[in-house]
Formats: sequence, structure tokens, C-alpha cells
Amino acid sequence: QWTNLDWKPRRPDMLADPFGIGRFMQDGLIFRQHFAIRSYEIGADRTASIETLMNHLQETALNHVRSAGLLGDGFGATPEMSRRDLIWVVTRMQVLVDRYPAWGDIVEVETWVGASGKNGMRRDWLVRDSQTGEILTRATSVWVMMNKRTRRLSKIPEEVRGEIGPFFIENVAIIEEDNRKLQKLHENTADNVRRGLTPRWSDLDVNQHVNNVKYIGWILESAPGSILESHELSCMTLEYRRECGKDSVLQSMTAVSGGGSAAGGSPESSVECDHLLQLEGGPEVVRGRTEWRPKSANNSRSILEMPAESS
Amino acid sequence: QWTNLDWKPRRPDMLADPFGIGRFMQDGLIFRQHFAIRSYEIGADRTASIETLMNHLQETALNHVRSAGLLGDGFGATPEMSRRDLIWVVTRMQVLVDRYPAWGDIVEVETWVGASGKNGMRRDWLVRDSQTGEILTRATSVWVMMNKRTRRLSKIPEEVRGEIGPFFIENVAIIEEDNRKLQKLHENTADNVRRGLTPRWSDLDVNQHVNNVKYIGWILESAPGSILESHELSCMTLEYRRECGKDSVLQSMTAVSGGGSAAGGSPESSVECDHLLQLEGGPEVVRGRTEWRPKSANNSRSILEMPAESS
Repeated sequence: QWTNLDWKPRRPDMLADPFGIGRFMQDGLIFRQHFAIRSYEIGADRTASIETLMNHLQETALNHVRSAGLLGDGFGATPEMSRRDLIWVVTRMQVLVDRYPAWGDIVEVETWVGASGKNGMRRDWLVRDSQTGEILTRATSVWVMMNKRTRRLSKIPEEVRGEIGPFFIENVAIIEEDNRKLQKLHENTADNVRRGLTPRWSDLDVNQHVNNVKYIGWILESAPGSILESHELSCMTLEYRRECGKDSVLQSMTAVSGGGSAAGGSPESSVECDHLLQLEGGPEVVRGRTEWRPKSANNSRSILEMPAESS
Repeated sequence: QWTNLDWKPRRPDMLADPFGIGRFMQDGLIFRQHFAIRSYEIGADRTASIETLMNHLQETALNHVRSAGLLGDGFGATPEMSRRDLIWVVTRMQVLVDRYPAWGDIVEVETWVGASGKNGMRRDWLVRDSQTGEILTRATSVWVMMNKRTRRLSKIPEEVRGEIGPFFIENVAIIEEDNRKLQKLHENTADNVRRGLTPRWSDLDVNQHVNNVKYIGWILESAPGSILESHELSCMTLEYRRECGKDSVLQSMTAVSGGGSAAGGSPESSVECDHLLQLEGGPEVVRGRTEWRPKSANNSRSILEMPAESS
């Protein structure tokens, strides 16, 4: 249970990490990093976007691995993994957002890892407002190993287990996980389809692959504009099925599946959506389910003028 | 001249700003902020993207205005400007990149403002490697005031001059500015045209306008892939002519204008390009010129495996 993490605001702890690269807490198993929300990380609602949150989770995970002395020659692969051409592949991710931080807020991200079945690793995150300790976001994910040459899944070799096993703990960030199977969405049942999505040059990482955080932007491309304007994302479950590269052409589909009219839901009630991101021609890239809550009165800040060009 | 800025690496100075919100240096006129380059801010070359650099410049400028106690109700507008419905509009920006920082590097951004003619303000930036003091990037920009209701340009009112004037200094970051007029590019002279570009939901700011940093991604969309792969951007001059909003459909055009073949330039020589971003149907949004240098031997790091899904 996340509640048994012994958390207190701790100013000296923050000062010991002036550049926000993060550090282990006293038990050596939970890693913590602070982020100040920057002007370019907020969206139309003046709060951090979901992609910003996911970027912070990714950055904290990588710094966790690096600080543990386990960064091999890749993004998160350990030395023993690198030796065996193994990489981590995310298969499932669930994120619950209680409140989105605003420009200038400082958040505190904690992450840790644990076992997931026999051959998987789970990685969890908790994000708090660093001033109040209020929990803003909880997330959990499952990772498996893939041989990067054969592209086949692999068991965790004993030598790798020897590296990462000592860091495994049993805390879970989300008590009631959404383990419902994600259904395949078809074009004829989707309410909204966006075709012809292609990676921008700046979406590519060093391997000329699209980073998994970028997929979220594409998934939301097909969410009805009326929902984006009146609701905020409160929960997201993603199942990653296939990678895509710089020449991929994708389509994004959304079906409004519950809590609102197919036209986009009423502004007063919560809405649930099913999503599919697929390569044009067929193969699925990501299945997803999202839940949206109405932007509440206390969240809808007075809209200040903030035009494109002013700075 | 930027060379007369009295710069020294100063560890206590950094510690006094644990969350990277920045602070004034001792003269109270130059504002400095540190950024650790994060894993999600780097691109296919494993170095910070040009958009990341521009985001850091924007963030530092806003924190400069905020730290000066001059942040009104908008993004950089002062209280006297807010009172008069005035906003800042950028009209020109030039950025020179000597070296792109890599993941984990810490950069130090300094910014200051000065007069630009009778009714403009210039804002300059210097970006250094915080370890070595090496200058990585120099940038300069020109801003004018616009009435946000009439959308007409305005003189700087005396009351606003009273707020910002005390901060004006005469340093310039770029000694030899590129003041050549940017020519209008036409479809029949462009080497590459990308049509149908539309803002993603996450590209919008609180006013449902597209932030000017996002335009750069669109401009580079029409740069030939061969140049993006073999060269790195060394200089960029942009002229902002018009804003665009969430329903805009744009096209991006590039003409390779010097230093290489129209097919994309040879890998060994520098290349110059002209760019135009315009609304489909005509009105110009941004004119630009870019210069590209070959990715040099010492910049081409061994390509480490960093697949999309691993983290």
C-alpha cells in the first residue's frame, strides 16, 4: 500500500539535489526527484499536460536506474542486459491523476520497482505537491525483456535478476488497479478517427523510434474536442503492443464508451473512452482506455490572456 | 558585447536556486537560471533539440519578468501593460548554436533586455555549459507591443517605460547579427512542401493559440530529411508575421538556398535554407532562414541502443 511509505516534506533533502537529478531516500529503495512545472509544460488549461506528467515519470525512472549504478549502454538497460542484447519493453501502464499541477508548482516524484509475475518487472510512481504533500498522481507499469536483435521476449536471466532483484519492493501505488481487458476497437464502432498521423522529426529518439510518451498525444488526437474542452483526463490505461518508427503512418480512433453521449458527453458527467492507435493497414500499436471528469469549478481558473506571441 | 559580462562558475549561486526557478545576478539586471537536460528533451542525436533550447529561453524570460516583480496577468505582460490591454509580440528572433548539450548536462541561461529603436524591446540570451563556462548558444529577439483587443501595434506608453526602462542594458549576445531581409518564398521555388499541418491539442496554450516555439517544429517539417540526418542547425533567423490558432491549417516550405545541392546538400559542406510557414490559402505566419553545419566527427557519438519502448 502506498500509504505505508514514510513521507514527510524535507527541505534539506531538496537542497541536496540542486539540479533536480534526484536521489535515493534513506532506505535506498525509493528514488525521489523534484520538478518545477515550467511555462512550456502547461497546456490550454494552464496546468501540466498528461504528456508532461509522463515525461517526468520517464525521467525519474531513468535517473533511478542511473543512480543505482545500473545504467548500461541504453535507456534503462542494465550492464548484464546490454551484454545480452536485452532491452526493457513496457507492456502496460496505468496512470491516475487526482490533480494537475500548475506553472511554478513543484512536484515530487517517487519511484520504485518490484516483481511482476515470473518474468516481468513492475514500476510504480507517486507524484506529490512538494509544498503540501498532497498526492497528485499515481502510476503503475509492467515491463518485460526483449532481445533487441530477434525482437522476441525473453525470460529474466539470473545475472540480470541479481542486478535488479535487490531493488524490488512490494509497495503498490494504485490499490485498485484497472485489470479489465482492453477490447480491440474497430473503425466502424469508433466515434472519431484521425488518419495520416506521422512522426515529426522531433518525435524520434536516438534509435529513430518514437518514444512511448509521444503515443499519448496521438491517442488524444482522436478524442472529441468537446471532451477535451469540458473534461480533464482522470485515468488512463494503455497496453503497448508494437513500436513504430520514423516512416510509420498511423491512425487514431476513439469510441466514447460510457458516461456520456457519443457526441462527446455532457459537461456535467464523467466520460469513458476506448482508444486504438494502429498502423495504417492494420497492426495495433496501442490500445487504451481513458476516464474523464468534468473540469470542476475550483479547477477552472479565470482564463488569463496568454497569447501565442507574448513572452 | 557579451564578452564584458563578468561570468564565473559559482557553486553557492547555484545552490541558492534549488528548483531552477532562477535568480538575478549581483547587478540586478542579468537574470540567470539553470536547466538539467532531461531524457525527454533530447532527440535522435542524443542532444537537446532546438525546440528544447527555445523552451529554456522562454522559461528564463518569463522568470526574469516574474522575479523583477513585473508579471501582470499574462505571459510576460507588466501590470501597466495589463491595465492597457497590451501584450508583447515577438517580431524577430535569431539563435546561434555553437554546441548542443547532451542528456544530463547542466546549462546556465542568462537573459537581459534593452531598447530596440523607439518602440521596441530587445531581449538577449546567452547559454553556457555550467561546468566549463563554454558558450553553447547566443540569441537575440525584438518585441513590440500590441493591443490585444484591436490587434494593432502600440507605442510603449510612458508608464510602461517607467516599469521596464530601469532594466534596460546595452549588452548584445550576438555581435554580428544577421540583418539581411528574409525573402518571401513561393511554392514554385521551394524544394520541399509539407501541407495540412494542424495544431495538436497539446500545442495550444491557455488562449488556444499556438506558442511561437511550436512553429519551429513545423518549419523543420519541410527541411529535407537528408539535411536533418547529416547536418545540425547552427543558426536560425525567424520573422514572426501572424499568429495562428487551433483551427489553422498550415503549410511549411523549404528552399535549399546555398552551400549544397537542392537535393539536400553534401554531407561535408554547410547548407543554408529559406523557409516559409503560411496558412493554407495565403497569409504568412513565419519567414525563416537556417544554416546547417555537418555533424562533425566529435559530435557523432557512438549510437547507443535506445529503443522506443525501453525506459
